[in-house]
Amino acid sequence: MAPIALHEDLDQAIPKVNKAAFSNPKETGESLRLAARSCSYTSQTSGAAPTFVQANLIVLPSRYASDFRLLCRRNPVPCPLLAESNSIGRWDQLQSWIDGLTGDQIAKNLDLRKDFPKYMVYQDGVLTKSHCLDVEADWTDDHVGFLIGCSYSFESALADEGLVPAHISNGRNVPMYRTNIPLCPAGSFNRSTYVVSMRPYRRKDIPRVQKITRRYVATHGEPIDWGWDAVARLGIKDISKPEYGEAPVSPDGSSFVQGDGSEGEELVPVFWGCGVTPQEAVRVAGVEGTVMGHAPGHMLVLDIRDWDIIPPVAGE
Amino acid sequence: MAPIALHEDLDQAIPKVNKAAFSNPKETGESLRLAARSCSYTSQTSGAAPTFVQANLIVLPSRYASDFRLLCRRNPVPCPLLAESNSIGRWDQLQSWIDGLTGDQIAKNLDLRKDFPKYMVYQDGVLTKSHCLDVEADWTDDHVGFLIGCSYSFESALADEGLVPAHISNGRNVPMYRTNIPLCPAGSFNRSTYVVSMRPYRRKDIPRVQKITRRYVATHGEPIDWGWDAVARLGIKDISKPEYGEAPVSPDGSSFVQGDGSEGEELVPVFWGCGVTPQEAVRVAGVEGTVMGHAPGHMLVLDIRDWDIIPPVAGE
Repeated sequence: MAPIALHEDLDQAIPKVNKAAFSNPKETGESLRLAARSCSYTSQTSGAAPTFVQANLIVLPSRYASDFRLLCRRNPVPCPLLAESNSIGRWDQLQSWIDGLTGDQIAKNLDLRKDFPKYMVYQDGVLTKSHCLDVEADWTDDHVGFLIGCSYSFESALADEGLVPAHISNGRNVPMYRTNIPLCPAGSFNRSTYVVSMRPYRRKDIPRVQKITRRYVATHGEPIDWGWDAVARLGIKDISKPEYGEAPVSPDGSSFVQGDGSEGEELVPVFWGCGVTPQEAVRVAGVEGTVMGHAPGHMLVLDIRDWDIIPPVAGE
Repeated sequence: MAPIALHEDLDQAIPKVNKAAFSNPKETGESLRLAARSCSYTSQTSGAAPTFVQANLIVLPSRYASDFRLLCRRNPVPCPLLAESNSIGRWDQLQSWIDGLTGDQIAKNLDLRKDFPKYMVYQDGVLTKSHCLDVEADWTDDHVGFLIGCSYSFESALADEGLVPAHISNGRNVPMYRTNIPLCPAGSFNRSTYVVSMRPYRRKDIPRVQKITRRYVATHGEPIDWGWDAVARLGIKDISKPEYGEAPVSPDGSSFVQGDGSEGEELVPVFWGCGVTPQEAVRVAGVEGTVMGHAPGHMLVLDIRDWDIIPPVAGE
């Protein structure tokens, strides 16, 4: 076995983030949130305000909050909890779940009911509003909002290293699959399974893909499985038919199918824990009452930067 | 679906720990460690120094430390990391991984090479010493020790509530099983699976068992699965033949087999994430060099108490 090196060695293999290039950003987390709040920004947020961390949303009736918090704590890879409402009913102030950061540092000028470009609303598990611009009318004094890490941070890091995910270079949404890998249950959230996102890479590049993404411990980290044999292992029936997102493509835009390949040139599927997992868990648990979430791809842009959520590198 | 209530409600259902009853303990973590260090205590530690938290040990060559730390972080339920050597080679000072506690608070007067009653030593994956009294000769400047949470804390809590685990009331070791549930991989620690411990309970008691053990987030928390159908789901071939520990028994001492039962009186298997999981992961990964661990059941007794690792209850 060839062990992957210590963090210290690992870090030397990864170019340091060029913070200076982003020292005077045109767009910030706050400017994006204000634009979404005033409905002047209503688009997907992929690529918006580069280096600002983005987040998924789940808003639950308070009686489910304890179970959901524990679900995230027991399943930090698919369900990385970044922050939640500072108290029941609060939409303007966060309690941080990231070591060393306060809620105000994560996002200060905040309205969880309006600052996502688009939302989804469910009543007793049934979708009642799709892609609405705010949830002001749906949010009550009894709701608790949760912010979950999103893979945009590590996708930028992969792109910076010349490993642009194929769905991005082809202008598509990432393919996401249900699996048969159980989550550790937490109270009423049981019998749920991982949702995974998939990005194709050449077999020889997988060690580098692992090294680059593993630092993003708050946003799914390194892959949970890879290779064509992982498809069956995860219980995925048809790689061409993801349950969420769009069908996978190869980097050249052709359909992604198992091909020949030698010396590590073969393209294989690489799977990560996915932020859709907690939404699936809420759906499977049959939560009663009003539940809200962001519309797919329409994230909250935070005040923190990518380098705030990765372990520090000596000299940065 | 009937949601389990918020922590606040939950806590009201659980009698508060009677700290006063343990305010002047005859045995402490430190007295146990000193006795083990001088070889005057060489027994198993189940029931020793009640209310003092106990821990599993894994000592690895430093080049594996980063991967192993990440493995624990990605799999906190089976691999709850409590603390590690404060720096490479240190056996006398801990770095804490428990929020709000320092390494010195966890265990101050400490020698990881001698303070466990008994140890196991492996060379390139092969057991070379079994149940030795110290590992002073094996520990090098390049070793890193890791302390992993142990289920003794929640077993005491179950017993206090009249739910004494059957293996304890029958003076046996808990049965432990390999499963097919994959761990989230971390670098070289991949292709590993959960090890689970099993305690039989009546179906009607499972909600109470969940509530009591879920607070022990640093020591495996609530069960990960339960019921006779969970046996197949976890990939356990024969419930009567655990891979570790002793064969399961019913509370009355009879062999534990699927029986009749109505109105929730049926005894069913209840499974928890198990602290043997990280040892299995190290074994499966084929770690090279000298690896040390505690002998089964022969734990390190810490300075912290059970109530230091569970969420605070209002009024305590």
